[in-house]
Amino acid sequence: MTDSFFSPVSGLDLPRFAGVPSFMRLPHVPLDHPRLAEVQIGLIGAPWDGGTTNRPGPRHGPRQLRDASTMIRAVNGATRVAPFDLARCADLGDVAPNPGDLMDSLARIEAFYDRVVAAGIRPLTAGGDHLCTLPILRALAKARPVGLIQFDSHSDLNDVYFGTARYTHGTPFRRAVEEGLIDPSRYCLIGLRGTAFGHEDLDFAAATGIRIIPVAELHARGAAEVMAEARAIAGSGPTYVTYDIDFVDPAFAPGTGTPEVGGPTSWTALEVARGLRGLDIIGADLVEVSPPFDPAGNTAWLGVNLMFEMLCVLAERIASA
Amino acid sequence: MTDSFFSPVSGLDLPRFAGVPSFMRLPHVPLDHPRLAEVQIGLIGAPWDGGTTNRPGPRHGPRQLRDASTMIRAVNGATRVAPFDLARCADLGDVAPNPGDLMDSLARIEAFYDRVVAAGIRPLTAGGDHLCTLPILRALAKARPVGLIQFDSHSDLNDVYFGTARYTHGTPFRRAVEEGLIDPSRYCLIGLRGTAFGHEDLDFAAATGIRIIPVAELHARGAAEVMAEARAIAGSGPTYVTYDIDFVDPAFAPGTGTPEVGGPTSWTALEVARGLRGLDIIGADLVEVSPPFDPAGNTAWLGVNLMFEMLCVLAERIASA
Amino acid sequence: MTDSFFSPVSGLDLPRFAGVPSFMRLPHVPLDHPRLAEVQIGLIGAPWDGGTTNRPGPRHGPRQLRDASTMIRAVNGATRVAPFDLARCADLGDVAPNPGDLMDSLARIEAFYDRVVAAGIRPLTAGGDHLCTLPILRALAKARPVGLIQFDSHSDLNDVYFGTARYTHGTPFRRAVEEGLIDPSRYCLIGLRGTAFGHEDLDFAAATGIRIIPVAELHARGAAEVMAEARAIAGSGPTYVTYDIDFVDPAFAPGTGTPEVGGPTSWTALEVARGLRGLDIIGADLVEVSPPFDPAGNTAWLGVNLMFEMLCVLAERIASA
Amino acid sequence: MTDSFFSPVSGLDLPRFAGVPSFMRLPHVPLDHPRLAEVQIGLIGAPWDGGTTNRPGPRHGPRQLRDASTMIRAVNGATRVAPFDLARCADLGDVAPNPGDLMDSLARIEAFYDRVVAAGIRPLTAGGDHLCTLPILRALAKARPVGLIQFDSHSDLNDVYFGTARYTHGTPFRRAVEEGLIDPSRYCLIGLRGTAFGHEDLDFAAATGIRIIPVAELHARGAAEVMAEARAIAGSGPTYVTYDIDFVDPAFAPGTGTPEVGGPTSWTALEVARGLRGLDIIGADLVEVSPPFDPAGNTAWLGVNLMFEMLCVLAERIASA
Amino acid sequence: MTDSFFSPVSGLDLPRFAGVPSFMRLPHVPLDHPRLAEVQIGLIGAPWDGGTTNRPGPRHGPRQLRDASTMIRAVNGATRVAPFDLARCADLGDVAPNPGDLMDSLARIEAFYDRVVAAGIRPLTAGGDHLCTLPILRALAKARPVGLIQFDSHSDLNDVYFGTARYTHGTPFRRAVEEGLIDPSRYCLIGLRGTAFGHEDLDFAAATGIRIIPVAELHARGAAEVMAEARAIAGSGPTYVTYDIDFVDPAFAPGTGTPEVGGPTSWTALEVARGLRGLDIIGADLVEVSPPFDPAGNTAWLGVNLMFEMLCVLAERIASA
Amino acid sequence: MTDSFFSPVSGLDLPRFAGVPSFMRLPHVPLDHPRLAEVQIGLIGAPWDGGTTNRPGPRHGPRQLRDASTMIRAVNGATRVAPFDLARCADLGDVAPNPGDLMDSLARIEAFYDRVVAAGIRPLTAGGDHLCTLPILRALAKARPVGLIQFDSHSDLNDVYFGTARYTHGTPFRRAVEEGLIDPSRYCLIGLRGTAFGHEDLDFAAATGIRIIPVAELHARGAAEVMAEARAIAGSGPTYVTYDIDFVDPAFAPGTGTPEVGGPTSWTALEVARGLRGLDIIGADLVEVSPPFDPAGNTAWLGVNLMFEMLCVLAERIASA
Repeated sequence: MTDSFFSPVSGLDLPRFAGVPSFMRLPHVPLDHPRLAEVQIGLIGAPWDGGTTNRPGPRHGPRQLRDASTMIRAVNGATRVAPFDLARCADLGDVAPNPGDLMDSLARIEAFYDRVVAAGIRPLTAGGDHLCTLPILRALAKARPVGLIQFDSHSDLNDVYFGTARYTHGTPFRRAVEEGLIDPSRYCLIGLRGTAFGHEDLDFAAATGIRIIPVAELHARGAAEVMAEARAIAGSGPTYVTYDIDFVDPAFAPGTGTPEVGGPTSWTALEVARGLRGLDIIGADLVEVSPPFDPAGNTAWLGVNLMFEMLCVLAERIASA
Repeated sequence: MTDSFFSPVSGLDLPRFAGVPSFMRLPHVPLDHPRLAEVQIGLIGAPWDGGTTNRPGPRHGPRQLRDASTMIRAVNGATRVAPFDLARCADLGDVAPNPGDLMDSLARIEAFYDRVVAAGIRPLTAGGDHLCTLPILRALAKARPVGLIQFDSHSDLNDVYFGTARYTHGTPFRRAVEEGLIDPSRYCLIGLRGTAFGHEDLDFAAATGIRIIPVAELHARGAAEVMAEARAIAGSGPTYVTYDIDFVDPAFAPGTGTPEVGGPTSWTALEVARGLRGLDIIGADLVEVSPPFDPAGNTAWLGVNLMFEMLCVLAERIASA
Repeated sequence: MTDSFFSPVSGLDLPRFAGVPSFMRLPHVPLDHPRLAEVQIGLIGAPWDGGTTNRPGPRHGPRQLRDASTMIRAVNGATRVAPFDLARCADLGDVAPNPGDLMDSLARIEAFYDRVVAAGIRPLTAGGDHLCTLPILRALAKARPVGLIQFDSHSDLNDVYFGTARYTHGTPFRRAVEEGLIDPSRYCLIGLRGTAFGHEDLDFAAATGIRIIPVAELHARGAAEVMAEARAIAGSGPTYVTYDIDFVDPAFAPGTGTPEVGGPTSWTALEVARGLRGLDIIGADLVEVSPPFDPAGNTAWLGVNLMFEMLCVLAERIASA
Repeated sequence: MTDSFFSPVSGLDLPRFAGVPSFMRLPHVPLDHPRLAEVQIGLIGAPWDGGTTNRPGPRHGPRQLRDASTMIRAVNGATRVAPFDLARCADLGDVAPNPGDLMDSLARIEAFYDRVVAAGIRPLTAGGDHLCTLPILRALAKARPVGLIQFDSHSDLNDVYFGTARYTHGTPFRRAVEEGLIDPSRYCLIGLRGTAFGHEDLDFAAATGIRIIPVAELHARGAAEVMAEARAIAGSGPTYVTYDIDFVDPAFAPGTGTPEVGGPTSWTALEVARGLRGLDIIGADLVEVSPPFDPAGNTAWLGVNLMFEMLCVLAERIASA
Repeated sequence: MTDSFFSPVSGLDLPRFAGVPSFMRLPHVPLDHPRLAEVQIGLIGAPWDGGTTNRPGPRHGPRQLRDASTMIRAVNGATRVAPFDLARCADLGDVAPNPGDLMDSLARIEAFYDRVVAAGIRPLTAGGDHLCTLPILRALAKARPVGLIQFDSHSDLNDVYFGTARYTHGTPFRRAVEEGLIDPSRYCLIGLRGTAFGHEDLDFAAATGIRIIPVAELHARGAAEVMAEARAIAGSGPTYVTYDIDFVDPAFAPGTGTPEVGGPTSWTALEVARGLRGLDIIGADLVEVSPPFDPAGNTAWLGVNLMFEMLCVLAERIASA
Repeated sequence: MTDSFFSPVSGLDLPRFAGVPSFMRLPHVPLDHPRLAEVQIGLIGAPWDGGTTNRPGPRHGPRQLRDASTMIRAVNGATRVAPFDLARCADLGDVAPNPGDLMDSLARIEAFYDRVVAAGIRPLTAGGDHLCTLPILRALAKARPVGLIQFDSHSDLNDVYFGTARYTHGTPFRRAVEEGLIDPSRYCLIGLRGTAFGHEDLDFAAATGIRIIPVAELHARGAAEVMAEARAIAGSGPTYVTYDIDFVDPAFAPGTGTPEVGGPTSWTALEVARGLRGLDIIGADLVEVSPPFDPAGNTAWLGVNLMFEMLCVLAERIASA
């Protein structure tokens, strides 16, 4: 990777609080940019929270995640991976949602990611609420169902809210399985906890073969063992990773709409992301960061670190291909 | 008014921070309550912000406004009106919106207010975003167009957002005029300011005869003179009042989604509400209070004081009838 | 449990941010309500902090805990207990304290709980500061001393503050033992830590046979083992549980008046509450939540989850009786 | 004033954020200090809020006011008075209240100010809630009733709260008049507004001859005219000044327990304080600053500026004597 | 202005919370951009606060101002000026300061503005602390002294801090006059208030002929009259405008390092900016916005509105040339 | 220790929120105080952040740490050490930095500590940013290199920032090793994590023999084992301890300029400090507490607890000598 165009600005040259904030200080390469075709990993914002049933705010996530991301440096201190040396990365900008029209927003997101896929770019998305993942999967899994690893305190496998609402941030993976976007036998959900409306979601998981690892099991077995199982479930096929920030305990990530207490620490949160190493990840996202509920900014800062960990795994895979 | 059922709990008996918080510590009388028919003024929450095009949060408004409202006492210090002695007031609870379905939410709100109207109750609503006012008007103006006094830093007279969105918090009064719910010749908008997308809204107002009093005119002429004109415009017919908290300067009301600087003080905000005295108000609302952006709680506190001022005007009218 | 009167409102029907907030969306059943006699578990607010020697605020605890509690759903995700199916639960409202008279407040709280006991209801209280527990114990332990399990970073076993003050939130259990309300041989205190004024409290515990498990021991032995010992100490007799939110590390629960660093995580906080299972709990409380010091609302959210865990234990016991 | 002992530390020597924070960076001269007898104006903290009936917090006022006060410089920019050149000023430290005993706290405060009076020092107090003013008046008005100028959004002339509470922050001046500490004919209250429990306080004022200037009158007539009247009422005799920060609109001073909207701006707040010039002020206070409700610190900063304005008036009087 | 390259993104197309945030959603045109020569007005960030003697933070100003600026729309609601139709505007990015080297930072800023001047661009700068204005003036006034209109609560005309520090945010205009960058006879400072270290700065102003209008005079005479005088002082020659956000009262702009109470409202703040109309402004800045002290974001929002007002004046001048 | 002069004020006498806040309520003994020579441990504030390359604020650290420190009591609850009975401790006040001159500030700090060393006092410093440690070491290690134990998420072993800046908070220990102040063979750094600019710092450590224990190793081995190794490295010679609060995870300590996620809990943070027991500590510091980024005050509260733990180790050493 010697093309300086794709090198992020260094904090030793321009202080990290300075400059127009793109993701990780990468070049801003919109979909109509002449160098789009060179991009291998595209960081994208999906500033939309139309699926939120409780506290809103993730529409502001990409803005705050970009802001926090300018504190990211070039090298992963834990794994010593230098992702920007391994793959050409760029900030592709934000999808334009339609805050006044849910179905149109889903269509807009899908169309955006169709172009990303067409350009051969692996997307790393900053949400947005968890419903954003559904249209992304529609674009990425058009050809065949994919494996899924989901870090989440909720299953997001519910069916209908408020009598009529089939598309909310509590239903995306129910829809995705129904639409054949995910292979449930290659789907592993980690971190479930909190109170439940009932057991409809667990029944659906049991019936379709989705593996759910509740947080008690994660606390008991540890990140390494759990991720070994998750990797085995996902296998060698194309796999999508979706990381809901509410996977982490709200002491570490208060800025989210539906926090659940009793979650893992930030260290475990990093460990599970590092545990993705080796998978054939075709795309990933970090969702549900809600800046209005994040007084110290800790949530966004943890969020971009998790994005960076996933970026490192993506970049290593690309470099090793 | 000697029925203790409708008397609010006094802060000299139960401290104001105690108790389950209903609006102004009034009895909670849901629509299926046996004493509903006795209610003259109904305080209602419309916890919905599905029309918000910018920063969300007004869905949390009714909760915070109820909380702040327990600091309201029995007597208006400025006018010495004691509204709870003049009219039977109650908290009718919240409309149940559908956060995942905009059109269904509009229908639900309208249906709720149909029942309120049928019960002969004048509604005083705590929003929610400004789109909530549209279905309320659909219920209240079913029989004939009404006059409208709007306190607002924006016109909310736009046509379409994001290409397709005809129902947002920037369009309710355009729709209401188009639907014949408002008589534009009896419509006065006070407080317009801030930057504008263009002049489409002003053109529409000019074409239909809506009177707009920009904030510079309010600053120059003062609340008394401006309200005299507004009363003359609304006349003696049935009139609805809609109070967007962003009418007030953000120093006094930061907790709103689209604040505009250069607005009036809280004193002027109270003065214009008191200037409604004498009108035949058939309903009123206070909208766009967004708790996630209100660090000190000042916005909700000002909001409930404005609701109390409008309540006093409503109660006086009822008592004088 | 098929009586819909006692069923909480579901978040799938009415969004969780909507509605007048009672505890866990249960019916509001004041002491003069016709259905009081049916209630088995009563959720009560004790909005009083007259015993606070340092930072005040717990008087606002019940309000904020009710607000947060509307995010609680029907089923315990960890134990799969559905408490509202096992016992008739209701929000009994708040005790009316006298913020200007400490001794009168103690008398008012005791009188309120006398009526709760007389109605055969097991109280689950949201404080208020820790002095609130003393008058509750006076009502619940009138007949005989009870066992006590206390989660707390402080012993609250001191004698006198400021020369004359025998009733503060640092002295309730000293008084309770002196008054014969607690059997010290069935009293186990878990989580002690932080700096100390001296050793007077430890001496009193040693002299009377109170078992104190400091936080270092909890960190070393784990929740399961410590709770096994605690259950053995409390035995099969009637036992009260008092949970001071400052038991938890301030990263998880900053909103309290006297935080102490080095505490357990939220996961351990939940685990010790689940470890109460099987005890004959006659009442429980969650105290010292101080909203003014809780910028993200995490403390109240953790607090109501802990209340829910204790509610599940209470409901299971009632159902199994 | 050439004694460097009494000169505040300059921000040009030691940055204003540095150093142990005494009031206005003056020397700390406790009551047992050898140079106490030289002090002419004593700045004192009364960290007590035992009289608070609503939101607590003023016990933290002196700490935050001291912190903010290190930003005060040597010269009044508006009047060009340099108070520290005109009078020997010192920080006398804090009264030690008894948070667990209201009556003992009143006695402790009175005893402290007895010593201040005995030393010939004019006290300038930072509260604490408004009940603190009662024991101060007991010490200062032992010999004869004094005049009173009160800046306040509330009358604080109520009789009893919660059935039994005669000493709260809503009753101090009722008590003070009853005890003969204040000459009601020399008592002027400015700024009354907000909702009222009833009219008991106004009746008392009318019956005893207290002059109340409601905020509407202040808005209409302006600070200069109102203060001319206030000075005429207080006359040439010894006069105490009590400044409740809730006099000011909550946009300027959110950090207080019972804010009332529609108040004056900070400019008017300064103007009325400057309007005290010429009176024989024997003591003054600034009360009800509540740091937990002051997210930006604006309230304390305004508060110390108001203390400085009163200090300038006191110093000029001393210098001219 | 028909070149779409220089048109800001509309909030009706892309929601205002979306997208990589450049100033007012203008194109990002760094100094090495091929279209630099077309730019007429350059919006620039100066993220540096090395001159701050009290509370730091303005280094984060440009980031937060850009964020807030995406809420600005196309047309000035008060004057109906559409600046982006009148002049080609762009975001030139941030100067790279050296946080570890004050003198090097001054040199870097000057060098950056030398290039801006060379490109014939009028700069509109977002600070940064007030010391940033000195190197900007060094670049803009190289050829001849310029007129200066300064909105500020402080004079910033001091000489030396802490014994040796000649370059702080309290000294820039002393240095600028000494260096011959400003013509003191064309220099008008508006808004002075607060406590003062002494009278050295006033003496310097008097000796050199600088006109200072203290805030009391502004309150008394009003914005229109004061600005008429200011325009007369600046005359028809090239004039620089420097706007310190602490000119405004801290209720409206808390997010600044050295707030002074008693300042003008946001309405007056806008009025004085509009009063610049007609002057030959060669550059302008808005400084001292400090995000860490701005809990509601009001300060940045007011700040970008003031930048927009100045931009309108600049654009009108360019269009009329 | 029977001299009451050196006894801190007890919270049982004066409530902990009261009084002029010195460190841990100890006597304020400036360097010119007559009893300076008796002091054995001096608590000192270094309110300076001129070396900060990212978010500023530690200049406000000493003020907030003093404020929080008044909640510290007399006895260490974990070790039962009562430090104020073992050694004469005092608050020596703050060093006066020069915010406008980095090199002068370094000189001022060194000169201050020269006097502390000359008086035979062991300093316990509250920073300030990490660059403050360099001039402290220059004073303490004048005679010979010392051992160093550093708790930190960063190495602070970088060479140059922004092209020219050799003195920043990222370079102090590079400079200290180069200047011969530290014996690298007795230097152990614990807690390294986060992203890295490159590997220059690790290369320097490897070349000079500095032992770095990354956070993954700390998580895996535990505090006890790691501290045993650290003690072995430091050996029996004079050792300095520098504790950067960013060692702790930002959930526990958000108030710092460059937080790094994945850090240890507060319990581990305390454990490593207790693990210093037995070393010959000649001085210690707690740096990088940044109040503007600490909404709940947790960081300062944890910080003073860590200072107290280090104070206990210092006092035990003195008492055992």
